[in-house]
Amino acid sequence: MRNTLLCCDWGTSSLRLSWVNTQELQIIDEVSGQEGIASTYNAWKESTDKNISQKEFFLQKLQQQINVLATKLGVDLNNIPVVLSGMASSSIGLEELAYAEVPFALDGSKATVRSFEKQPEFSHETVLISGVRNQRDVMRGEETQLIGLVHLMNLPDSKQKEIVFVFPGTHSKHIQVQNNAIINFQTYMTGEFFNLIAQHSILKNSIKNPKQEKLTEADWEGFSRGVQESAKATILHTLFSVRTNQLFNHLTKAQNFFYLSGLLIGTELRSLQQKTVPQIVLSSGSNLYPFYQRAIEELQLTDQTLVVSPEIIDKAAMVGQVRIFEQQLTPI
Amino acid sequence: MRNTLLCCDWGTSSLRLSWVNTQELQIIDEVSGQEGIASTYNAWKESTDKNISQKEFFLQKLQQQINVLATKLGVDLNNIPVVLSGMASSSIGLEELAYAEVPFALDGSKATVRSFEKQPEFSHETVLISGVRNQRDVMRGEETQLIGLVHLMNLPDSKQKEIVFVFPGTHSKHIQVQNNAIINFQTYMTGEFFNLIAQHSILKNSIKNPKQEKLTEADWEGFSRGVQESAKATILHTLFSVRTNQLFNHLTKAQNFFYLSGLLIGTELRSLQQKTVPQIVLSSGSNLYPFYQRAIEELQLTDQTLVVSPEIIDKAAMVGQVRIFEQQLTPI
Repeated sequence: MRNTLLCCDWGTSSLRLSWVNTQELQIIDEVSGQEGIASTYNAWKESTDKNISQKEFFLQKLQQQINVLATKLGVDLNNIPVVLSGMASSSIGLEELAYAEVPFALDGSKATVRSFEKQPEFSHETVLISGVRNQRDVMRGEETQLIGLVHLMNLPDSKQKEIVFVFPGTHSKHIQVQNNAIINFQTYMTGEFFNLIAQHSILKNSIKNPKQEKLTEADWEGFSRGVQESAKATILHTLFSVRTNQLFNHLTKAQNFFYLSGLLIGTELRSLQQKTVPQIVLSSGSNLYPFYQRAIEELQLTDQTLVVSPEIIDKAAMVGQVRIFEQQLTPI
Repeated sequence: MRNTLLCCDWGTSSLRLSWVNTQELQIIDEVSGQEGIASTYNAWKESTDKNISQKEFFLQKLQQQINVLATKLGVDLNNIPVVLSGMASSSIGLEELAYAEVPFALDGSKATVRSFEKQPEFSHETVLISGVRNQRDVMRGEETQLIGLVHLMNLPDSKQKEIVFVFPGTHSKHIQVQNNAIINFQTYMTGEFFNLIAQHSILKNSIKNPKQEKLTEADWEGFSRGVQESAKATILHTLFSVRTNQLFNHLTKAQNFFYLSGLLIGTELRSLQQKTVPQIVLSSGSNLYPFYQRAIEELQLTDQTLVVSPEIIDKAAMVGQVRIFEQQLTPI
C-alpha cells in the first residue's frame, strides 16, 4: 500500500474516487457515481440525526465510497491517505476553505489546502484542496485538473505566448496561463443557459432533442448556422432567431436544437477571437467535445488549438491531486 | 355612435378594449384584464365543446368584454366596428394572418389586415391587423403602436437621421425608422431572461426581490454597477458576477437583484452605442421605464434620447388602430 493514494474528485453533481499508484501515476481502480456535493449537502440538511456535523456527514459518505472500492478490490484501504478537490471545499461541502488567489502557480505550490489527521471514524490522513479566485470569478476543481494537464502534456512554452485552457461544461471555464501560472480565468454559464432555455423559455416550443446517438449532417448544419449567427449581436437578441427559424421554417425542430447549442457555444468561444489569438487548449472529456471542436473550426481557430487526448483528460484531476499532495510533504 | 370604434389591443397576456371617439382620438371608456391570447387559446384547447372553432371561441370572448364595457357604460355597443391588433392575428389568436414586410410605411398604408362582415353572433364589422416581419424577426402589435406614436408626436425628421424606437418588455423591440417607414427591427429577450434567471438558474440564490415600492439609493447603485459591468463581456460570462457579488459580499441580495436587471438592460441598450448614435425614442408605459431611463443615462445616451410621455404611450395603440382602420375606408 506504500506509494498509493485515494484521490477524490467531488463535483457538484458527481463523485469519482480512485485508488492511485502515485509513482506511476496510474489509477489502480475506481468508483464513480451521482453522489455529488449538492445532493450530499441536501441529504445532510434533511438528516434526522441532528448531532452529526456537516463535516462528519461528508466523511461518512466518503467512507462508504471507500468501502465500496475496498470490497470491489478485496483489499483493506484503511490508513491510505485521501486527497480531495472540487466542490468539497465549498460552503456546501466537507469544510469551506478560502480560495487561493491568482497568479496561481501550476506546480501546485500555491494551492490552498487543509490537512486533517486520522480520526477513529475516518482512518485516513486527508488533504482538502481549495479553489482559486480572481477579482470577479471563482472555480473549484479546474485548477487541480490544470495542474495535472500541464504535468502530463507537452505544451508550448507559456513564457512565449499566453495559453487559454477551455473547459466546457455547465459553467465553462476559460483559464489564461502565462509563465506556468494561472493569471486569470472566466466562467461562462453556457451549459446552464442551454438547459434553462430548452426547459423553461418560450423557445422550448421551437426545438426538439432528437435523442439519437449520432448527429446527422442536417443537425450539424443547424449547429454551424448557430455558430455563425452568434457573431451578429448579443445573445439576448440572436436567441430570438431560434423562434423565427421555426416560424419561417428555416430549420426543423431537431436542427434548431443544435442551432441553439451553436449559438451559445459560438458566443462563448468568440471571446477567444482577440487581436492576438492565444494558444488554445481544448480540454473536454464530456459529450460536449465534438460541439466545441466543430465551433472552433467554424471560428477558424483550429490552427491555434491543441486538443487534449481523452487519456490525459481522464487522469488530469488525479495527477493534479497527487502533485499537490506531494507538495504538502516537501520540506521547505 | 357615429365616429366611434371599439379598439382592442390583445397581447399574449393582456387584453385592453377601448371605446373610442375617432374624430377627437379620445378614449370614451375602456376595460382591461389578464385575458390574453395565450390563456384564451389554452381555454379553447381545453374547452369541452368541440363544435366551436378557434375563431368563434375568440369572438365569443371578445363579445363578453364588449358586453362588460356596454354594461359599465349603460349603452348599446352593437354594430360598432371593432379593430384588433397584437397577438390576435397569430397562430394562437383569432385567425392567423401573414406578416407585413419591411419597409413598413408608418401612415398605415402597408398594413396587412383582414376584414370580417358582421355575423349573427358577433354584430360588429371587424378589422384584424397583422404584424410585421423582416428576414430574421417578427413583431405583432408594436407596429400599430408605432403608427400611433408618430402620429401623436412631434418627432425629428427621419429623412435626416435614423430613429430607433425602444419598446421595453418581456421581448423588447428596437425599431429602426427612416423616411417615415420601419426599415428594420430586433427583438431582445431581456424580460424573459430576467424571469428565467431569477426563477430557475443557480443565480436565484444570489438575489432577492425586496418588493418595496421605491428603490433605495443602494438599489440604484446595484443597478448602475450592472449596467457598467455589461460592457465587459458577453452576458454568458458577466452573469456569473451575480454569483460572485454574493460570494464576495460585494452587494446585498436586494442590490444584486437590481444588478442583474442592470446587466440585462445594459446588454440590450449597448447595441445602440454605434459609431453614429441614432436618435433614440424610449417608449415604455410599464414599470420598466425608470430602469431603461437610468441605463440610458449610464450609457451617456441621454442627449440622443427622447422620452415618450405617458399620455401618448397610453393612446398610441388606439391611434394606430384608428389610422389603419381609416386606411381601409379610403378609396384608392
